[in-house]
Amino acid sequence: MSTYFLTWRDRFERIRANKIFEAVVIAIIIVSALLIGAKTYEETSRFHYWLLALDMAVTVFFLVEIVIRMAAEKRLRDFFKQGWNVFDFLIVTASLIPMGESDMVLLARLLRIFRVLRLVSMIPELRMLMAALVKSIPRMGYVALLMFIIFYIYAAIGSFLFAGVDDYLWGNIAVSMLTLFRIATFEDWTDVMYATQEDFAWSWLYYLTFIFLTAFIFLNMMIGIVLDVMQKESMAIELESGEGEAAEIQGLRGDVRELHEQVTRLENLLIQQNGDPSSRRPTDES
Amino acid sequence: MSTYFLTWRDRFERIRANKIFEAVVIAIIIVSALLIGAKTYEETSRFHYWLLALDMAVTVFFLVEIVIRMAAEKRLRDFFKQGWNVFDFLIVTASLIPMGESDMVLLARLLRIFRVLRLVSMIPELRMLMAALVKSIPRMGYVALLMFIIFYIYAAIGSFLFAGVDDYLWGNIAVSMLTLFRIATFEDWTDVMYATQEDFAWSWLYYLTFIFLTAFIFLNMMIGIVLDVMQKESMAIELESGEGEAAEIQGLRGDVRELHEQVTRLENLLIQQNGDPSSRRPTDES
Amino acid sequence: MSTYFLTWRDRFERIRANKIFEAVVIAIIIVSALLIGAKTYEETSRFHYWLLALDMAVTVFFLVEIVIRMAAEKRLRDFFKQGWNVFDFLIVTASLIPMGESDMVLLARLLRIFRVLRLVSMIPELRMLMAALVKSIPRMGYVALLMFIIFYIYAAIGSFLFAGVDDYLWGNIAVSMLTLFRIATFEDWTDVMYATQEDFAWSWLYYLTFIFLTAFIFLNMMIGIVLDVMQKESMAIELESGEGEAAEIQGLRGDVRELHEQVTRLENLLIQQNGDPSSRRPTDES
Amino acid sequence: MSTYFLTWRDRFERIRANKIFEAVVIAIIIVSALLIGAKTYEETSRFHYWLLALDMAVTVFFLVEIVIRMAAEKRLRDFFKQGWNVFDFLIVTASLIPMGESDMVLLARLLRIFRVLRLVSMIPELRMLMAALVKSIPRMGYVALLMFIIFYIYAAIGSFLFAGVDDYLWGNIAVSMLTLFRIATFEDWTDVMYATQEDFAWSWLYYLTFIFLTAFIFLNMMIGIVLDVMQKESMAIELESGEGEAAEIQGLRGDVRELHEQVTRLENLLIQQNGDPSSRRPTDES
Repeated sequence: MSTYFLTWRDRFERIRANKIFEAVVIAIIIVSALLIGAKTYEETSRFHYWLLALDMAVTVFFLVEIVIRMAAEKRLRDFFKQGWNVFDFLIVTASLIPMGESDMVLLARLLRIFRVLRLVSMIPELRMLMAALVKSIPRMGYVALLMFIIFYIYAAIGSFLFAGVDDYLWGNIAVSMLTLFRIATFEDWTDVMYATQEDFAWSWLYYLTFIFLTAFIFLNMMIGIVLDVMQKESMAIELESGEGEAAEIQGLRGDVRELHEQVTRLENLLIQQNGDPSSRRPTDES
Repeated sequence: MSTYFLTWRDRFERIRANKIFEAVVIAIIIVSALLIGAKTYEETSRFHYWLLALDMAVTVFFLVEIVIRMAAEKRLRDFFKQGWNVFDFLIVTASLIPMGESDMVLLARLLRIFRVLRLVSMIPELRMLMAALVKSIPRMGYVALLMFIIFYIYAAIGSFLFAGVDDYLWGNIAVSMLTLFRIATFEDWTDVMYATQEDFAWSWLYYLTFIFLTAFIFLNMMIGIVLDVMQKESMAIELESGEGEAAEIQGLRGDVRELHEQVTRLENLLIQQNGDPSSRRPTDES
Repeated sequence: MSTYFLTWRDRFERIRANKIFEAVVIAIIIVSALLIGAKTYEETSRFHYWLLALDMAVTVFFLVEIVIRMAAEKRLRDFFKQGWNVFDFLIVTASLIPMGESDMVLLARLLRIFRVLRLVSMIPELRMLMAALVKSIPRMGYVALLMFIIFYIYAAIGSFLFAGVDDYLWGNIAVSMLTLFRIATFEDWTDVMYATQEDFAWSWLYYLTFIFLTAFIFLNMMIGIVLDVMQKESMAIELESGEGEAAEIQGLRGDVRELHEQVTRLENLLIQQNGDPSSRRPTDES
Repeated sequence: MSTYFLTWRDRFERIRANKIFEAVVIAIIIVSALLIGAKTYEETSRFHYWLLALDMAVTVFFLVEIVIRMAAEKRLRDFFKQGWNVFDFLIVTASLIPMGESDMVLLARLLRIFRVLRLVSMIPELRMLMAALVKSIPRMGYVALLMFIIFYIYAAIGSFLFAGVDDYLWGNIAVSMLTLFRIATFEDWTDVMYATQEDFAWSWLYYLTFIFLTAFIFLNMMIGIVLDVMQKESMAIELESGEGEAAEIQGLRGDVRELHEQVTRLENLLIQQNGDPSSRRPTDES
């Protein structure tokens, strides 16, 4: 590695670590977000070329920024080791794809929208929040599976029974699951029920058991998660606070043991004085 | 019991405990679930015979599987001691009933749907989750009773007062309770209220008190359950962490008592030396 | 008080305390509840006379029951000291009022409905639950007041601004508050908003701030109550578990103090032996 | 400062601190609130002049009251140091602005409504509640930002894709965000979905991911806040309860140390007696 190149990397590293550079990047991301928002207003079609120019400027800036951050690493591999860097790289490079055909316009626009997510990768507090959210996903895994099984069973029943009543809502198992999700959010669920109740007078039982089951499992899941998180927290607190007290008691025990040895020595001394070997005791009795 | 038979049971037991066997069973259950889902699509009627064949294959497989599991037990009684085994047995045998008449087709289909629940009985984590859910039911018993009483009273009032306004919603106490459940889920409850308010200007009081009562009791119930579960958890933690510390203090007390005995011996020794019987003290003073 | 009369009171007391008597009363209350429910079905008008007879039988039974419970008390005043007894008395006597006029029929019917509440007064677990619910009301007092102030202010604003848009929803401050309660339950709130947004383009701000404010305060209230209840519970646990450990440590301190006295005696003995008065120490040093 | 003026300030201070004065102020605020409510009823237009007179009386009373409170302070600056005083001052002075033009009438009316908020500034419990609410806002800062980013991204996507389907709901990014808020409250969200699903069959994925994301983040935020508040509470409890026990253990250690010193003295005494300098130990061994 030449000295010349090293100097360049150092410069890039200094730029990357610079607080002003970070602020500029965040500002540009916000500008890019506002740009996306502005395009949704028809009135802005007059400034079409200005918006296009701004958009290109933002794209170029993001490109330069990511090149600086890549050049600042000792090895390119290190850059791609962090998930957020990979995310940034994909977002930036994907928006470089030329958008000639009409189909691609939509995709290019969507990609530009995801640039707003770069805000999450730039602000450490949001990154931490995101990490905490991701961490809480597996905890819900089996409950989600159980929920899915219940949805599947009810959707199958609903599809078999009610397909004739309303094909749009109960046509097949997929739309039935969507309808059941709607019922789980209480969204006009009575309209759905009243329709099926005309043919199947007992169908209210189907809806009520479903609502109770999902609400019940959801509630239990929530309580479970709250308790799970709390238990970990309280154990951490217990350990911390406990250590102080436990250490104190440990120290006390040490003091008493020391005292014990001292008294043993004293006893031996007295016995020696007395010259009575029969009652003599070993020094390390306990 | 002959040696020949023993060998067979051992073989079945080995099959049952086999991880691959378990995985195959789970896979077949998923296939059976997908089959049920596939049947809800009209497009699959072309493959009607294939689906029927697959369905029969699944039925036969389940039959074989349950026979293996039954044969693996030392006594047949042991098999039926576990709730999940009984459940599996019922699901599997019920789907063996020939479905000739048109009425039975629906029932047979429903039974096939419940096969998906076998997934719960096969995955230990889901079985544990289910057990935890079942355990939390009695806790809600009296609150559910109180809730029912409130629903019943309001339904009776609603039925007496509003039956003339809308017979479909308030016709009798049963539909009134359904309407009240709808109101408790906030589902278009204002439509119901606006209708009755034309005849009974003060009926908003009926709806508001009902909503407040149910929401209030539900909230209290939730808080109660959370606290109930938490208290048990924290008591378990207290006991565990407390035992460590308490044992430490107990040990300390033992140390001090031992020291005490030693000093007593020392004292007696000194007194003997002094030959002063008046101040002599018994060895087991405390 | 004559011996004859005493015997009667004792008999009544024995009846009241009888488990079978209690079970019969609960059964009659349930019968009375079913009777009320049955009357809401038009089909039951055929059995009108039977229902009337049953209703009278229930009324007479309740009268006899309450007379027995009153006669079982040493003094009548004691009977009315318990809130639930007063409630029972009112419910039972009120249903004795003859219902001749058409207006009174409705009232008499409503009174009969409230008989179902006697179930709460008969089952101790429900009585306890009810007491716990009542106890949790004052805790919410000031939050409810704050909520009311917010509702009042928003209702006044809404009534001033939107009365012209929809007189039925925003006509005066009372209906405005009802409309706001509807919005707080998310019940078709967008319909209300879309209507006012045509005249007042910025009215979405009114709805969003209201929803955020009420949701925010409600959430804080809930958290506050959960914490309030939990703190009391955990303090109770701390006190209980703490006492055990604290007592142990107290006992330990006593042991050490005793040891100290013993060693002091030993020291004095040695000093006496030595005959060196200058280093002599008092017995009760600490 | 003249003695004459001092006497006046003292008088004002005494008035301000007077419980009856406070009660009168609260009563007048309630009267003013009722006045505002009364004006929303058309029937009260007959008493228009009476209401106007009452309104003026209230305005004058509030002016007098605030002047008294200002005069009661040693320096005027002290009055404006408290946020609630500034709020009261603004509310009272703003309602003094003459309301001649028609446009101003509305503003004047709105200002009169905000007088009701003075109730919060007058009742200490409500002031404390308000302070607690304000304190809990920053805790939600970054979660609110994350939520906003998600709303913004989904609104941009929704606006790009669905603007053609329903211009009123998805016309630009602002109305799209409002529509998404509606979906987050489950308010007729299926109507919105069914409309877009006709053109974009896969749009249910858009709605479901949005609902899951917002619900998931909201739930995590709530749990986070509950835990945050609880941790602070439990730490406070731990510290308090811990100190008692820790002090006890500290005292015990002191006792043991004292004992140790005593035994050391004893040992030295014995050694002196023995006249064996080789095994002599220093007094402050540990």
